[in-house]
Amino acid sequence: MDICRLSAEAALARMETGDLTARDLVQACLDRIADREDAVGAWTFLDPDLALSQADAADQRRRDGQAGPLNGIPVGIKDIIDTADQPTENGSRLCAGRRPDRDATLVTLLREAGAVIMGKCVTTEFALSAPGKTRNPHDPARTPGGSSSGSAAAVGDFMVPLAIGSQTGGSMLRPASFNGVYGLKPTFGTISRAGMSPLSRRLDHPGIFARTPEDVALAARVLMRRDPADKDMRGHAGLGEADPLTAAPRLMFVRGPAWDRGEADMQRAIEDLARGLGDVVQEAELPPVFDAALACHGMVMNGSVVQALGPYYDRDRAGLDPITADRIERGLTVTSREYLDALYQAEAMQDALAGVFDGIDAILTPAAPGQAPRDLSRTGDASFNGYWTLMGAPAASLPLLKGADGMPIGVQVVCPWGEDAKLLRICRWLSDKVGEWR
Amino acid sequence: MDICRLSAEAALARMETGDLTARDLVQACLDRIADREDAVGAWTFLDPDLALSQADAADQRRRDGQAGPLNGIPVGIKDIIDTADQPTENGSRLCAGRRPDRDATLVTLLREAGAVIMGKCVTTEFALSAPGKTRNPHDPARTPGGSSSGSAAAVGDFMVPLAIGSQTGGSMLRPASFNGVYGLKPTFGTISRAGMSPLSRRLDHPGIFARTPEDVALAARVLMRRDPADKDMRGHAGLGEADPLTAAPRLMFVRGPAWDRGEADMQRAIEDLARGLGDVVQEAELPPVFDAALACHGMVMNGSVVQALGPYYDRDRAGLDPITADRIERGLTVTSREYLDALYQAEAMQDALAGVFDGIDAILTPAAPGQAPRDLSRTGDASFNGYWTLMGAPAASLPLLKGADGMPIGVQVVCPWGEDAKLLRICRWLSDKVGEWR
Repeated sequence: MDICRLSAEAALARMETGDLTARDLVQACLDRIADREDAVGAWTFLDPDLALSQADAADQRRRDGQAGPLNGIPVGIKDIIDTADQPTENGSRLCAGRRPDRDATLVTLLREAGAVIMGKCVTTEFALSAPGKTRNPHDPARTPGGSSSGSAAAVGDFMVPLAIGSQTGGSMLRPASFNGVYGLKPTFGTISRAGMSPLSRRLDHPGIFARTPEDVALAARVLMRRDPADKDMRGHAGLGEADPLTAAPRLMFVRGPAWDRGEADMQRAIEDLARGLGDVVQEAELPPVFDAALACHGMVMNGSVVQALGPYYDRDRAGLDPITADRIERGLTVTSREYLDALYQAEAMQDALAGVFDGIDAILTPAAPGQAPRDLSRTGDASFNGYWTLMGAPAASLPLLKGADGMPIGVQVVCPWGEDAKLLRICRWLSDKVGEWR
Repeated sequence: MDICRLSAEAALARMETGDLTARDLVQACLDRIADREDAVGAWTFLDPDLALSQADAADQRRRDGQAGPLNGIPVGIKDIIDTADQPTENGSRLCAGRRPDRDATLVTLLREAGAVIMGKCVTTEFALSAPGKTRNPHDPARTPGGSSSGSAAAVGDFMVPLAIGSQTGGSMLRPASFNGVYGLKPTFGTISRAGMSPLSRRLDHPGIFARTPEDVALAARVLMRRDPADKDMRGHAGLGEADPLTAAPRLMFVRGPAWDRGEADMQRAIEDLARGLGDVVQEAELPPVFDAALACHGMVMNGSVVQALGPYYDRDRAGLDPITADRIERGLTVTSREYLDALYQAEAMQDALAGVFDGIDAILTPAAPGQAPRDLSRTGDASFNGYWTLMGAPAASLPLLKGADGMPIGVQVVCPWGEDAKLLRICRWLSDKVGEWR
């Protein structure tokens, strides 16, 4: 197996026994990037020497018995997340050449765990919908999705085993679905956003891409740390340990309020999956309060994006991509009454969701409308993700389905608030049970 | 001493030794009300038989060894707080004859502690600024302040030893100042608002009026209880115990951004007080971020009031007092961007305030612009209170100053977030040191 195809877990095991060095691993990833970057365009900044020097430092730490839990593992960082040693341009001309003074908290945590901050991955402009240069590694005519386009594509194309993205609508799980990788949008407030360009304090979630659920857990264990600099973090102590699954999890298949926006091959594939799992899966619909879920997410997002990006808009509207400017403009007329009404309606949905989970371990639901669209001018539809983001419950996309053209399609699995560790166990169970895409 | 003039603490001590019954106490308060209500107008609902039957039940509990910490103590309840056995009309024609199904959480807690729910105290319409019938008990030509008009006047006029009010701008501490009583607006999220008519989830604080700091503490100990039905409560476990003051508290006199709205006699009186306390008091001004404090509070309040009261406005604008309708209308054009900007600016003030408290136990600052105005068509200016409400820090008004006409003027004391018990100790220390109004 090519070294660049190793999971982080497997690479760590080899480094632990001395069969692999961090330099070898990082060099293998750099070689893969050199081969493939022209076709994929996952990176907006990459300095091979900087990456290799971090790898050498990691190898030295291992020799010194100082190896952290991600020692020597290369990680891609979405370019809305600040790095002190690499530019952070938020995917926008307005931030061209921007060099932050300091690392985002999550980057600090990765460095403390020994990770190699490999480079900066392409984001749509300010993590909204104006695409960057990235193409889908499985078909360069197709979008990789967004906004975490480069992060998902880099992991899907074996350029790095791990990458960090973020989700406000569907910016983690849609690209995870399109690129055939695992994506975790953890419980709201479990990973610090300090040092990340904001869209919405109510909705922004950093997340993790990897090619195995175990690698997601490895990174989550490092990143889920309370940070006073992010005022919206809850008292989450960390990923925690989930009890091993002694029996099959009890799953509920939910089509959800976005179902009609799905494509026929996706709908068929996930219905087949649910049916194929037999007694483990029951079917249900969400309570009526969720009828307003898509509108509510849109209102909260528009109403807060305008606050977060308004200063850029005021300063230089013409410098923004028209897609970005349009999105900000949709927020200009949102009133505080509309915003708060939507916020409190979302709370009613959260209360109702607690009832839905009664007797159930996890919800199965689509992660995206279908295969990645053959359209590089947009990043696809986030309708299957936004309302789950609004719920704040942990959600993952698993690369379990195949579309009409053989492209990956994700399955979204949602667990109750705070049950991220359990969610990752269920991901493993499901992947073993039904087999991954490919 | 008239029984109706006893503090709750003194009445409880007498009931404990058998020198007083709850029936005697409640009857004495009813007699005082019968004497004075025509002049003061503190009550919107009062059923003497209902009050006496609760008193008899309290006496029975005491005989049975079941007396709670407020057993037999009559408490007035602001009429925006639901009571299942008494109407709750929110001071509005639109709610005339309204009978809630159940008690507000705080009423339940009072009943569990043995209190007699004496009756419903006059509120301005929906706790905004349209006055009810209440007059200042110290001068019937003057306003009692608002919005907790009846609660403060009832305590100030010896009709009850304790009453519950609420503050979104200055609705507790302004009437406390005008009526010569102690008022506590506790730390945000320490007393449940479930069952209370909302104005702003970000700003609404239930509070306590009494004639001694010890009585305030007695009620606070009962009411500070976490309630899942109020989603904005923090993990506050209760009032807690403050360490006894082994030395004089370190105080800081702050004029604050509303100073210029103060009247000359108030300004002189509080400056004299601060000077008279000597070395215990240093002077300082708040950091520049507080320059926007009054505007910020106004924006958050207008932006959320329109959400809370919008449905009444939509249904029957003409049924509202024009003062109420006007206030709601000020919120109609608030955008989510303006609202969120103000909210996040308030957070920056909260951060800065933590620095202000460095080496300081409490802030001394005005509680109101001066004596209660001779104007029954309005309830006075809340500028000295609103920005402290926005901070969420615990604040009390102490009846320590006297105005040009001999009317009471309060001193506001503010402690760091969560230090409510310490605040009440400092109130006692200050009252002992300088002597109360009268």
